[in-house]
Amino acid sequence: MVDKSDIYIKDLLEFLRIPTVSTDSAYKEGIVKGAGWLAEELKKSGMENVEIMETAGNPVVYADWLHQPGKPTFLIYGHYDVQPPDPLGLWTTSPFEPEIRDDKVYARGATDDKGQLLIHVKAVASLMEEYGELPVNVKFCLEGEEEIASPNLVPFVKKHKEKLSCDAVLVSDTPMMDKETPAIVTGLRGALAFEMNVITASSDLHSGAYGGAVPNAVHHLVKLLDSLHDDEGKITVDGFYEGVPEVTNALREEMARLPFSEEETKRELGLSSLYGEKGYTPLEQIGIRPTMEFNGIKGGYQGEGMKTIIPKEASAKISCRLVGEQHPSYVFERIREHVAAFTPEGATVTLDKLIEAKAVTMDPDNEYIQKAARAYENFYENETLFPKEGGSIPIIEVFRGELDSEPVLMGFGLQSENMHAPDEHFNLSNFRRGIKTVKNYFESF
Amino acid sequence: MVDKSDIYIKDLLEFLRIPTVSTDSAYKEGIVKGAGWLAEELKKSGMENVEIMETAGNPVVYADWLHQPGKPTFLIYGHYDVQPPDPLGLWTTSPFEPEIRDDKVYARGATDDKGQLLIHVKAVASLMEEYGELPVNVKFCLEGEEEIASPNLVPFVKKHKEKLSCDAVLVSDTPMMDKETPAIVTGLRGALAFEMNVITASSDLHSGAYGGAVPNAVHHLVKLLDSLHDDEGKITVDGFYEGVPEVTNALREEMARLPFSEEETKRELGLSSLYGEKGYTPLEQIGIRPTMEFNGIKGGYQGEGMKTIIPKEASAKISCRLVGEQHPSYVFERIREHVAAFTPEGATVTLDKLIEAKAVTMDPDNEYIQKAARAYENFYENETLFPKEGGSIPIIEVFRGELDSEPVLMGFGLQSENMHAPDEHFNLSNFRRGIKTVKNYFESF
Repeated sequence: MVDKSDIYIKDLLEFLRIPTVSTDSAYKEGIVKGAGWLAEELKKSGMENVEIMETAGNPVVYADWLHQPGKPTFLIYGHYDVQPPDPLGLWTTSPFEPEIRDDKVYARGATDDKGQLLIHVKAVASLMEEYGELPVNVKFCLEGEEEIASPNLVPFVKKHKEKLSCDAVLVSDTPMMDKETPAIVTGLRGALAFEMNVITASSDLHSGAYGGAVPNAVHHLVKLLDSLHDDEGKITVDGFYEGVPEVTNALREEMARLPFSEEETKRELGLSSLYGEKGYTPLEQIGIRPTMEFNGIKGGYQGEGMKTIIPKEASAKISCRLVGEQHPSYVFERIREHVAAFTPEGATVTLDKLIEAKAVTMDPDNEYIQKAARAYENFYENETLFPKEGGSIPIIEVFRGELDSEPVLMGFGLQSENMHAPDEHFNLSNFRRGIKTVKNYFESF
Repeated sequence: MVDKSDIYIKDLLEFLRIPTVSTDSAYKEGIVKGAGWLAEELKKSGMENVEIMETAGNPVVYADWLHQPGKPTFLIYGHYDVQPPDPLGLWTTSPFEPEIRDDKVYARGATDDKGQLLIHVKAVASLMEEYGELPVNVKFCLEGEEEIASPNLVPFVKKHKEKLSCDAVLVSDTPMMDKETPAIVTGLRGALAFEMNVITASSDLHSGAYGGAVPNAVHHLVKLLDSLHDDEGKITVDGFYEGVPEVTNALREEMARLPFSEEETKRELGLSSLYGEKGYTPLEQIGIRPTMEFNGIKGGYQGEGMKTIIPKEASAKISCRLVGEQHPSYVFERIREHVAAFTPEGATVTLDKLIEAKAVTMDPDNEYIQKAARAYENFYENETLFPKEGGSIPIIEVFRGELDSEPVLMGFGLQSENMHAPDEHFNLSNFRRGIKTVKNYFESF
């Protein structure tokens, strides 16, 4: 007898072979192909009104099945786009030639988010095959720009409020606590990302001829960046922490119950030590405190050997994770003021905003979340936990606000699955159990 | 009547067409071709014992003419290698397709050092053609690794002490004060260049999943780099300034006499302001104070848009200009200690030394320097000045020590000729007058 899940995995491999990178327009063809593949897959699953809906950017794939009046309607959200695969040299096997090793599938997008997205497609396919109908109403909204911060999804949702209306938004794009401990995320940090560019001269200068007497763009960028944190890891921008909630003892106790091993994290990530804001535990630093990370930097000569120039230009990519009532636009203005005040003489600094999203929190006692927790527990050993997640899914807040719906962030990935990094992978046992869990969840209504 | 200098310029263009980049092994063929071209040129000039002498790296081109017993022997040193041409996009015309505009020749190496080197070849060619002999003894030692800090020239000079023995070493690889003001450099800064590399994790991490709780290689590199200077532009490394001479009032007065316009420098280089160590004038900062410049930096995501990673690795290229008795190895050890003391938790830092050279100073009253000053003044409007130069020519100290000879740094370039930058060029009026000046200099003995 052919195990149905083997066929599902074959489909997953096919999906992973399509290079749906959204950060680089060179992959445009992959995006188009990926959207087309998904639409076909939804049709095969018995979904109706399947549609590839154009936006100003990459298309949204829509589908629905709405034949259970009186039952809740779920909007299933996921993204078929993936991060760029570079640095290619660090992958064990090619990022778009999925390979299964030790019951894990290795490919770009395996856990983020193609594998998790396909769980829902296969859950409804399986229900339709078994019963010829679904126990609830379902709509799919699968986008192709999550990795570039969903620039066109907000207008899309606003424009199609009626079409997308629902009771709950079901999303699998977050990690479980570990292989046997399910997790429903009840907090997501907001995000603000921008580029900082420093210019000091009209061309690179010879460091012998001018060194010591003229501004150096790399030096000035370094000074500016270093002014943004103090020695205790606190962000020094005036007003940055406005809207950040007080950390209550109750919250601290709740977070202390979440499993976390400092030693294991260090070993797994190859760290010699953790590093973060003083006075907070690592899980607090990740889950409930805002951060400012430097994601990339460049300037001057970067080739082999030496070129003794004074660089005329340097730039950095910077991203903040925001919490509570921190507003990304407000934070950006405070950073702008800080930069203006700390800009060293002789430098011209520009800031370009790339991403912004407000933080969002959910109530773990909500019915949609509680039923999801129970569904998990039929297939996993441990009780479901309700962590605050460090990442951002900007669209969640929009779904809640615009559609007046309850977000249910029911993840099947693992923190260790290298999302956004080389050798990204997805545990197939979670793919199989994920399908069963989602079926069971829908049946519980 | 054909002007001889037109033929000389034709030869210069031919020389500039050969891409003799020494910093990149992809140009190896250009180096070989450049050395061969020079050897032919020296033969045509009537030089004897022309030889392409192999080293562990790029060859040295040697030639001599030694038929004036009792007269001084000059060793003419120059380099036929050039800086890399990138960034190519910023050149008005292609760097290895020389073009003459407004009596200036534009090409990589035009002023540094092919144009200046060829002045000497053409001066002896012209003397030989006019008189059938030279008024002094001459040896040529033209190397192909100056732009990578002459790694093989020191052993070469030590091995061939006898062959290279001389009374004075004549070098044209420094700038004049301006178009009508000749300059003989009487001080060169030393150099120490190294790469700093910071590693924090075994792979890039997702900033949503870990941001706030793990070390960030770019952030740690920034902290380390920013610890190297204080807010007044002073270098904070303990012991860095050991061996730096006191700045006497006499020296300050001498330097204050050198022409320097802050406004013009700013306009010319596109600076909004100068920037340097407090308490010193720009010419003091460049000429007699040590510096530490950041020549390049890289780490994390550098592509378009955003990739919200926590970078695992970042690196910077750093170079110091040294003065007086500062010893590069000693300074490097002090920097190593500083870095060890300031390395933030969670970072592994390595330093790789790339270049080292001690500073050197000359006495302006020396006969060889005085006669050079007088020769200049026959063809230029203003008196010759004797500046301290900010750059380093590591081999000069070796020539003086090993060959017991007097360095004469008689430049024909201009500070504004974009050496090491796009649109490098050389004023042909200085090429023509340079040939006359060198002929006159030799005739004065």
